Amino acid sequence: MPNALKGACVFAQSGGPTAVINASAYGVIKTALESSAITNVYGASHGITGILSDTLYDMGKEDASELKLLMNTPSSALGSCRYKIKGDEDLGRIYEIFRKHDIRYFFYNGGNDSMDTCQKINDFLEDNHYECRVIGVPKTIDNDLLGTDHCPGYGSAAKYIATTVAEVYRDAIVYDTGMVTIIEIMGRHAGWLTGAAALASLSGSPPDLVYLPEIPFDTEEFIRVVEKVYKEQNNCLVAVSEGIKGPDGGFISEANISKTDGFGHAQLGGLAMRLANLIKMMTGVKVRGIELSLLQRCGAHLASQTDIDEAFLAGKSAVEYAVSGETGKMVAFERNILNGAYHCDVIYQPLSLIANAEKKVPREWINEGGTNVTREFFDYALPLILGENERILEDGLPRFAKLKKIRVT
Amino acid sequence: MPNALKGACVFAQSGGPTAVINASAYGVIKTALESSAITNVYGASHGITGILSDTLYDMGKEDASELKLLMNTPSSALGSCRYKIKGDEDLGRIYEIFRKHDIRYFFYNGGNDSMDTCQKINDFLEDNHYECRVIGVPKTIDNDLLGTDHCPGYGSAAKYIATTVAEVYRDAIVYDTGMVTIIEIMGRHAGWLTGAAALASLSGSPPDLVYLPEIPFDTEEFIRVVEKVYKEQNNCLVAVSEGIKGPDGGFISEANISKTDGFGHAQLGGLAMRLANLIKMMTGVKVRGIELSLLQRCGAHLASQTDIDEAFLAGKSAVEYAVSGETGKMVAFERNILNGAYHCDVIYQPLSLIANAEKKVPREWINEGGTNVTREFFDYALPLILGENERILEDGLPRFAKLKKIRVT
Repeated sequence: MPNALKGACVFAQSGGPTAVINASAYGVIKTALESSAITNVYGASHGITGILSDTLYDMGKEDASELKLLMNTPSSALGSCRYKIKGDEDLGRIYEIFRKHDIRYFFYNGGNDSMDTCQKINDFLEDNHYECRVIGVPKTIDNDLLGTDHCPGYGSAAKYIATTVAEVYRDAIVYDTGMVTIIEIMGRHAGWLTGAAALASLSGSPPDLVYLPEIPFDTEEFIRVVEKVYKEQNNCLVAVSEGIKGPDGGFISEANISKTDGFGHAQLGGLAMRLANLIKMMTGVKVRGIELSLLQRCGAHLASQTDIDEAFLAGKSAVEYAVSGETGKMVAFERNILNGAYHCDVIYQPLSLIANAEKKVPREWINEGGTNVTREFFDYALPLILGENERILEDGLPRFAKLKKIRVT
Repeated sequence: MPNALKGACVFAQSGGPTAVINASAYGVIKTALESSAITNVYGASHGITGILSDTLYDMGKEDASELKLLMNTPSSALGSCRYKIKGDEDLGRIYEIFRKHDIRYFFYNGGNDSMDTCQKINDFLEDNHYECRVIGVPKTIDNDLLGTDHCPGYGSAAKYIATTVAEVYRDAIVYDTGMVTIIEIMGRHAGWLTGAAALASLSGSPPDLVYLPEIPFDTEEFIRVVEKVYKEQNNCLVAVSEGIKGPDGGFISEANISKTDGFGHAQLGGLAMRLANLIKMMTGVKVRGIELSLLQRCGAHLASQTDIDEAFLAGKSAVEYAVSGETGKMVAFERNILNGAYHCDVIYQPLSLIANAEKKVPREWINEGGTNVTREFFDYALPLILGENERILEDGLPRFAKLKKIRVT
């Protein structure tokens, strides 16, 4: 292997957790442990902050069976951070730590901010003639990274959301007294997750209205449409993105909607509760607001096996690509249809393409009225939620990986 | 069979749905369809209100394969109600409908209010010399019925809660910046569901504090304890019952806590949000409030197989008992330990014992400080959450029963 740079590697996890983030961790760790080029495999505590504080764990000292359980363990096993690196001071410190431990491979698992961090580290090390391969591993339930068909983490969150909406639908229609139910879903800027609520219709449990942040939200029109659906069928189930914005571009969740609802103090509840109260105030019908909150991003018990496998593949590919001599790239996915079936291929994209950009749901995948997604969205999302996770259980509850986290000195 | 009264049967579902309520429906319907004594098997739309309005469906006209899917279909397939019958007027109407369709068996699936309804119907029909067997089938996620070791529906909700708390725990500790997370769980008067949150500790994900409605809630003390835990470990995960009450007996969720938090308008959010905001106000730490809402009672994808099997058994036993000549009873469960293993036997209790009473968590199953459950609670609850549900899926989503609901004329 001509480019087999010898040295240690460090892996770190950043940003909001997902149900499958540790499957990527396992992909990196397992592949790195098996690589003859990589001398030591370290995991940083709490993302880049663990490198800055020199808090590294020796992954080679973990039990293989526990590491394998990472495949079904949700939420960053090494801890996460939301730290934005501060120029040359932080970069110099990272360089110092890398030299101290002879780190020649750096794998960072995160979203667009993390890819920006990767890019900065890669550039700084190059400028200082320190040979180190820096590869980003994508991760975000929001699915908003450019340059990749989809992101590890999305399929599982989408499956959780679709399944939960299907179940809540059955509960929400159970009484003959009628109810408007509003379910709030994550995604501040892109509607990939909220669109997944519509997949519940495949289970015979369709949400009536689906509001994505890509379309400006008109509160008056919302009330009118909900009331119309409710009158027709005595029930109305609404899925709404936490990120919906008014015509002025401000988040509805932060807006003072006292002019319409008289509740200037509603900001204490979440968006679902606010909209539910608004509907109650304006129409008098029974309402319920449900926020899926953290559950949608840590619900590993409903992880999509497709997503788990792809998350592992992303981590594995990152190591293989770096060992082959590459740097400054992010692992990405390309969708191909083979014999009519969905197939996912790994490609590599420049970090600069992904850093600080966002991919939205295309306008044509949303219906004209902005109240649901179209067939194109279904075709896109459905393959990503397929496959049931063979969970490891003890006492009827998930058995998560228990890491020893032995500090590198 | 000496007591084989010939005639039709009607089955109805009442009160809040559960993940396994339709497993009891299937137990009743399948057994009744197979019984030579029962001439027709009807299901009432929306509980007792469907009998009052003569809206009955012919279960004999459903596809057997769809009926079987009731085993994994959450939330009352026939619709539910929260209707309290109005004396002789309603009872006379029920008598009239029963005579019209020659209904000689009535099975009502519900909680203590429904058992009160059963009792009244049974008494009224007896007074009017109309021979009809009335048997109650227990159902409530709250697990608060007297006369039975536990109720169908509880085990699945408990499994959902414990699994979700285990997953949220991992998410809530992921950042090094620290957070107080408050999870609100159903159960207005009894802490069975909230106590189930503690089972997450078996998964290595223990909630730090668990507050049941059996113990008066002291808000000042709550803030002090949360702050102490947070200082010790930089995180605090709290499970709290929606039904916690202050020393005056009033629900904390309804109390005006403006004196302590300055948010007199906080009533728009749920209890979790209110307590989270209170902690934020008093301590300044980052907080998150999560309400499990309807998800905990309709989460069939996490149903306990033990619970599903027992729910079916309850329905089946009700029919067999009625056909054997009995009336005025509710199916109940007795726990027995056979060769060291949990075993559930069916017994029958007088409706009058169950009607309008509530079973609380014993004081000795809660620790002295009222901040968690004890080993006895674990021993009680653990067998009920065991067993994984073999779900039927299509497109990666649950395949629920599709009933034709052909009206009886």
